[in-house]
Amino acid sequence: MFNERVKIKALLSEEPKNQQATVMGWVRTFRNNQFIALNDGSTNENLQVVAELGKYEESLLKSITTGASLKVSGHVVPSLGKGQRIELKASSIEVLGTSDAEKFPLQPKKHSLEFLRENAHLRFRTNTFGAVFRVRHALAFAVHRFFNEKGFVYMHTPVITASDAEGAGEMFKVTTLPFENTPRNEDGSVDFKEDFFGRATNLTVSGQLEGELAAMAFSDIYTFGPTFRAENSNTARHLAEFWMIEPEMAFYDLEDNMNLAEEFIKYIIRHAMENNREDLEFLAQRLTEEEKQLPQDKRSELGLMEKLNFVVDNDFERLTYTEAVDILRESNHNKKKKFQFLIDQWGIDLQSEHERYLVEKHFKKPVILINYPKEIKAFYMRQNDDGKTVAAMDILAPGIGEIVGGSQREERLEKLEARMKEMHIPIKEMWWYLDTRRFGTVPHAGFGLGFERMVQFVTGMTNIRDVIAFPRTPKNAEF
Amino acid sequence: MFNERVKIKALLSEEPKNQQATVMGWVRTFRNNQFIALNDGSTNENLQVVAELGKYEESLLKSITTGASLKVSGHVVPSLGKGQRIELKASSIEVLGTSDAEKFPLQPKKHSLEFLRENAHLRFRTNTFGAVFRVRHALAFAVHRFFNEKGFVYMHTPVITASDAEGAGEMFKVTTLPFENTPRNEDGSVDFKEDFFGRATNLTVSGQLEGELAAMAFSDIYTFGPTFRAENSNTARHLAEFWMIEPEMAFYDLEDNMNLAEEFIKYIIRHAMENNREDLEFLAQRLTEEEKQLPQDKRSELGLMEKLNFVVDNDFERLTYTEAVDILRESNHNKKKKFQFLIDQWGIDLQSEHERYLVEKHFKKPVILINYPKEIKAFYMRQNDDGKTVAAMDILAPGIGEIVGGSQREERLEKLEARMKEMHIPIKEMWWYLDTRRFGTVPHAGFGLGFERMVQFVTGMTNIRDVIAFPRTPKNAEF
Repeated sequence: MFNERVKIKALLSEEPKNQQATVMGWVRTFRNNQFIALNDGSTNENLQVVAELGKYEESLLKSITTGASLKVSGHVVPSLGKGQRIELKASSIEVLGTSDAEKFPLQPKKHSLEFLRENAHLRFRTNTFGAVFRVRHALAFAVHRFFNEKGFVYMHTPVITASDAEGAGEMFKVTTLPFENTPRNEDGSVDFKEDFFGRATNLTVSGQLEGELAAMAFSDIYTFGPTFRAENSNTARHLAEFWMIEPEMAFYDLEDNMNLAEEFIKYIIRHAMENNREDLEFLAQRLTEEEKQLPQDKRSELGLMEKLNFVVDNDFERLTYTEAVDILRESNHNKKKKFQFLIDQWGIDLQSEHERYLVEKHFKKPVILINYPKEIKAFYMRQNDDGKTVAAMDILAPGIGEIVGGSQREERLEKLEARMKEMHIPIKEMWWYLDTRRFGTVPHAGFGLGFERMVQFVTGMTNIRDVIAFPRTPKNAEF
Repeated sequence: MFNERVKIKALLSEEPKNQQATVMGWVRTFRNNQFIALNDGSTNENLQVVAELGKYEESLLKSITTGASLKVSGHVVPSLGKGQRIELKASSIEVLGTSDAEKFPLQPKKHSLEFLRENAHLRFRTNTFGAVFRVRHALAFAVHRFFNEKGFVYMHTPVITASDAEGAGEMFKVTTLPFENTPRNEDGSVDFKEDFFGRATNLTVSGQLEGELAAMAFSDIYTFGPTFRAENSNTARHLAEFWMIEPEMAFYDLEDNMNLAEEFIKYIIRHAMENNREDLEFLAQRLTEEEKQLPQDKRSELGLMEKLNFVVDNDFERLTYTEAVDILRESNHNKKKKFQFLIDQWGIDLQSEHERYLVEKHFKKPVILINYPKEIKAFYMRQNDDGKTVAAMDILAPGIGEIVGGSQREERLEKLEARMKEMHIPIKEMWWYLDTRRFGTVPHAGFGLGFERMVQFVTGMTNIRDVIAFPRTPKNAEF
């Protein structure tokens, strides 16, 4: 019934031949009782609808306010106004839903991102968030297209889990036990046998371990699902709930892993650039405007489009942790004590300031760091022959820092068990993980990419809460 | 380094010209100290590797056991054996990982599905589960391709939520509060202000309400994410954690909604049939074998491939709830009291036995039932003018029952608020949902498809635990 309509994105690409068309969407602005800017979310570009003066009742015209929804039929004609090629000369206008101009939170003016975050249920109707979420969609689709083309199998690993992949993470409890009259064991501890799953369960921090199980059958798999951290970090970089992509590949070593990750990142950025150029150009413009308020030295050296082109067209720099520490230690930045955490010895974990120095000041391009000290990495990473490092890789991106973390996995049963013991990982509970090393173990590798970090990188949004629909952060689960 | 290898699926489509090839995979069987059936998960078809007699050391041959992983280089030659076109004449064989034949749980024989469920970490290495999860992948990819082609925006709606979309569901609590010394208010109740999100939160039962918010900006959106029910149902049809697809479309009425759902279901099945024909043929064969153990009247009338072809090629039957109740009431089945729940009056909720009667006995094709009594449906469904029914639609599939549930949504603020009051839905907490009806409300509709039910339908697996990697069910969160 409603599908006689044409979407505005499609209509805007038509030749104006006085053809009949029906559109539906929301009013962005209404000027001079005559010109309606109508948007249906298919593109940021509005369709100019022309309501001939004198043709419509005053009461109808009064209800055409910002935020109201309309059904408009008319003829597609060349536009006389600048900035648009065509317009719709209305022959009938129907107001589907009104919007009280006094009360509608989105006035036709610039709103702060903070204000829009409090109105996350409406912010999709702004140009900025329209563009951000269409780009997010394009990136998500590109993820699936990339792996599908390569013959990877998409696995849905469990969200509710009794294991802790990182051996550390702060986790959310999942339970149906009551806080009143909680069932107890004789020693007073909580009797989780009475809980829904008969044991204590959490929200997953990673699908990697389960992903490895599937890779030991399908060779190449990937996950793309929500992951969780109950970390009390109220920053522009952290979410309690975020989406991760975790490919896992049998018969891959660290170099294969790096090659795949680099190809993958370039592929999904290129997909967005090809399919969402207008959205990205809008976001590039927005970023430039925003950065005008910053002091010169805080502004990006490259515009958003230049940055994306640069990443797509250039090889990522690859070096070892040891080489990176040497560069940092010898840097003027370190010598002049400009780092908050000075680099004085091999073995320390790199901070965000160090990663950004390497990426933004030293190499000025994405960097892949490999072979980190084993003490600062997870138990499942493959131990190198030097006895000190593991075959880890982190990919660092300008403006974002770590965007990918991965490694070749330890496929040798004895080495893995020994490392698990050292790190107090419960070996018995992980019988199923170790089984993959007992029965037909193979060299394999994988990585995780934080999807929101990637969306931030591509859209230039500086706060991670602005690239996920309804952010979950400490003390905030609204909507 | 490892990527010199070719995947077996690709190799099997090559012409045998004595060309060099390297493959890696897992041994399925090893016959006569000479013929290795090797599988790498890219297809169910094994590659026959021929190890020339006398060429390899006894110790090497001994370690080529079921489950072991190999790297084999050799030449691609025409096969003399039947059932295969080519084989790989090995020039070198390397055992990457051994597999103790005594201990490896997957012996080269038929295992029960129950046994394989207990070994879910290894079951991907069987033909059945290899096929099931490749088909699952194909269906998931088709979901994204379908909506992307139509210009829908993929939304990641929150997993952790403070709202209850269905106004009913049994939910899992998500919390970081301790069971010991739980923070309390003065009246003794739990002080959720101290919880991570500053309020009580749950795992979502549906992304629909948040999806509607986005549809009011982008026109067409879909979700594809995990959803949860803390329902103590230990059946072959229920999971505590499952994946749902929920499209939501502005400017759609119930008929548009039905059209989209039918087109969608046919599209994803067709995609799997085109891309995974061999897997489906294997599963069809498996189902036929399995059903041989059933009495004649319990067997499917159509084979799996016939069933899928039938669904793709035929229009779904569309009728109202009222018409369906008439058919059921007048049926011989009802008159002979063969239903456990007899159909005696308008208004009752249809049971699985009724749905199956309609689909499998009466119409013998998928059925869309519309306009259900409002008392048995959710608050957000659009009220029809008869005052008794709502614009709901359920799609029922042979062998599965309800596979899609959807409706046109109530877009009229007063009607929605009145219904929410009647049903004791907390209006104040849902301010953001009601805002979409306050500001530019539009007719809209949507539906939810349980992804695992769909995978069951396409693969013919009768237990839902066999179509998700690591099922979460009462008292079970292993792996």
